[in-house]
Amino acid sequence: VAQRLVVVGGDAAGMSAAMHARRRRAPEDLEVVAFERGRHTSYSACGIPYLVAGLVHDPEQLVARRPEQFRALGVDARIRHEVVEVDLGRRAVRVRALDAGTEAWEPFDQLVVATGARPRRPPVPGADATGILGVQRLDDGIALLDALDAERGGQGARRAVVVGGGYVGLEMAEALVLRGVPTTLVDARPQPMGTLDLDMGALVADALRGEGVELVLGEPVQAFEVAAGAVTGVVVGDRTLPADLVVLGLGVDPEVELGRAAGLAVGDAHGLRVDPRMRTSADGVWAAGDCVEVLHRVTGRHVAIALGTHANKQGRVAGIDCTGGDATFPGVVGTAVSKICAYEVARTGLTEAEAAAAGLDAEAHRVEATTRAGYFPGAGPITVKLVVERSTTRILGGQIIGREGAAKRIDVLAAAVWHEMAAEDLVGLDLSYAPPFSPVWDPVQVAARKASRVGR
Amino acid sequence: VAQRLVVVGGDAAGMSAAMHARRRRAPEDLEVVAFERGRHTSYSACGIPYLVAGLVHDPEQLVARRPEQFRALGVDARIRHEVVEVDLGRRAVRVRALDAGTEAWEPFDQLVVATGARPRRPPVPGADATGILGVQRLDDGIALLDALDAERGGQGARRAVVVGGGYVGLEMAEALVLRGVPTTLVDARPQPMGTLDLDMGALVADALRGEGVELVLGEPVQAFEVAAGAVTGVVVGDRTLPADLVVLGLGVDPEVELGRAAGLAVGDAHGLRVDPRMRTSADGVWAAGDCVEVLHRVTGRHVAIALGTHANKQGRVAGIDCTGGDATFPGVVGTAVSKICAYEVARTGLTEAEAAAAGLDAEAHRVEATTRAGYFPGAGPITVKLVVERSTTRILGGQIIGREGAAKRIDVLAAAVWHEMAAEDLVGLDLSYAPPFSPVWDPVQVAARKASRVGR
Repeated sequence: VAQRLVVVGGDAAGMSAAMHARRRRAPEDLEVVAFERGRHTSYSACGIPYLVAGLVHDPEQLVARRPEQFRALGVDARIRHEVVEVDLGRRAVRVRALDAGTEAWEPFDQLVVATGARPRRPPVPGADATGILGVQRLDDGIALLDALDAERGGQGARRAVVVGGGYVGLEMAEALVLRGVPTTLVDARPQPMGTLDLDMGALVADALRGEGVELVLGEPVQAFEVAAGAVTGVVVGDRTLPADLVVLGLGVDPEVELGRAAGLAVGDAHGLRVDPRMRTSADGVWAAGDCVEVLHRVTGRHVAIALGTHANKQGRVAGIDCTGGDATFPGVVGTAVSKICAYEVARTGLTEAEAAAAGLDAEAHRVEATTRAGYFPGAGPITVKLVVERSTTRILGGQIIGREGAAKRIDVLAAAVWHEMAAEDLVGLDLSYAPPFSPVWDPVQVAARKASRVGR
Repeated sequence: VAQRLVVVGGDAAGMSAAMHARRRRAPEDLEVVAFERGRHTSYSACGIPYLVAGLVHDPEQLVARRPEQFRALGVDARIRHEVVEVDLGRRAVRVRALDAGTEAWEPFDQLVVATGARPRRPPVPGADATGILGVQRLDDGIALLDALDAERGGQGARRAVVVGGGYVGLEMAEALVLRGVPTTLVDARPQPMGTLDLDMGALVADALRGEGVELVLGEPVQAFEVAAGAVTGVVVGDRTLPADLVVLGLGVDPEVELGRAAGLAVGDAHGLRVDPRMRTSADGVWAAGDCVEVLHRVTGRHVAIALGTHANKQGRVAGIDCTGGDATFPGVVGTAVSKICAYEVARTGLTEAEAAAAGLDAEAHRVEATTRAGYFPGAGPITVKLVVERSTTRILGGQIIGREGAAKRIDVLAAAVWHEMAAEDLVGLDLSYAPPFSPVWDPVQVAARKASRVGR
């Protein structure tokens, strides 16, 4: 008799799991059903800022595969279907058909939980008002477009405030300014981009100001002003910033309530606990994507990092392993990249601050260089900061800010962190060189030379 | 009493050695003298194609440091001084002052040999005619400019032939066409770019043809036609290609004659033999740069690879170690990158053909992807070819061809080869992702997924 795999959540992690399971098992052996409460499957939430900026013209462009495409491939993907309860004893999920308003129990043999994450909201009055939007689901992106554009049935926002200066917040602030909406970014830290050290965040702040984003730093949001249920302003310190659109850029929390209610273990980082095979604490129940927490290979602690790249990898592992395979997700080192105005910004491993918080005795080395050979047209500035363990010079992390061509270098540092290379090991690594791509010493190796003890 | 370090050769390797030694020893402890037979020190030979193309306007821009700058830093750099003999018994070099025509013996305690390389010439009649130029020294680049430009006192070449389709040959062919000189590229192989597999070289050939370079492939040069001592044509098969300028792009050979005559060991790859500390076979004699051969970490064999990046690293090691330090050059994995027309071309490790030649049982996996998320403006094609050991999927090498932003990914593959990662290890590596930089699965990981056995 055929088995049944149920997937909860139809974005990157869930649909990766569904597709990998599908490829490994014949339809007569395994039925694969995926429930998605929103209107879209397999979309790029990371693309929403570019939709808002007008660089991408149609939300459909962000959709990698539509439900009917999945169905043609043998995955029964059902949108507007919300899983509201998991009963592990009964091996079934209760599913609400949002349009019909009906509910039914759907049995499973294997279950993949990929419920994603939800935007953090400041715990202050008015935070649930209309006009305060996250940027998490494609439906959020469409709601944002509606709010911005009177022609789409919205009000045509006149002033926007972005609350929180993480990647998404900064990308959204830039997108809004590009769209012609005067925008203020509010961050409780002294610099935006809290995943970087403050000195590197300051470079990002300068880039944003240069693009016309107003920054209000070092003060948390205290309240939202609301009229007739809609936001009208953001109270920061003793000022009120007028706003008819607020975008939440405070990061996200794993969406674990469905799993927790079913009895799945939740870990220290508030994500579903999984082992490297993406198994939850319950037999035959797997989880993947933004709703889980995973191992940080440098600190040895668990972290919840919401990124499409992890979601895809984890979904692949869950899909392989829930059909009897043996893939593992090896953990993360905290790599991330973003384009902010004309700058590319990237990080991996631990910042100086994170290393200190992890109890590591670290030192940092920062260098300025150029993205190409200095004489080559288009050479631009690049700043590389390397964080190393003091006693061994083991590379703990790196941060890069620079012009076009700067940021993908972070991948070399990610590999260096991954393999616990010492600074001198990185100096010797055989990296590519030609004048259009790099100075003869790649900037990451200039930083490594500075961190190395050899030859001093 | 002070010691004396003599450096033979004033480009990347020699002057890196000189400067590192200088920084580690006070002038009263160590005198540092460098002899360079040409007119320039520390120049970027890799920049010559861009000088010819007109992207760089003045040969001086390619000079990182001039002799007077070195002297101000305590390194006695003497140009137009050729070391013509090394006497290891006497611990002295015989130096010819090329302008004065005089010679003198200069004593040393430590000697660094950095004599570079010389362009290969086809062993056919006429190969020494005027108008047949290499691209190895900055003086070569200036001679090329003279030959191209009547205003600089040259003839103003009307037709050029590039012999040999390695990186430099291809870069020069493109540069000549950009300068408006009709150019034919001749390569004895069926495709140019012999450091890539033929299927990847074919993509490069298409790019060159699209830019207007005529390609004559699969036939070696049989002779040069010469009139009044100057080249007038290149004989290939049964045709003669008219040419008043021939550029040699057949690669280079280590310039070892000075060292060999002094009794230094020369290895299988025809370079000076050095250990990882850049020590030659003679006490107190070091060598670095294009004149040496070094360990290829994948094959375990010695190779001579002429690249500024290796020269700088090796010079650093020689300069540190000849002053009592303990740096090592860990070998190479054969990483290289080039921009050919609108394409970025890169390779690392072994090609499929090289793996076979090394007796490894390898398989290759090739994927087509995009440089950015498919929906992001500016996303261009990228082809990644991964070569893995069949039994273990250990990554032996990679090749990348693609549009802007494609090539620097080779550094991740270089790190993967370096650390002997298996394909599945690379699938799990925490690489950066954001839509302006990469699809959610980086193309190198798409290739790795294809090569992995896990989940099949």
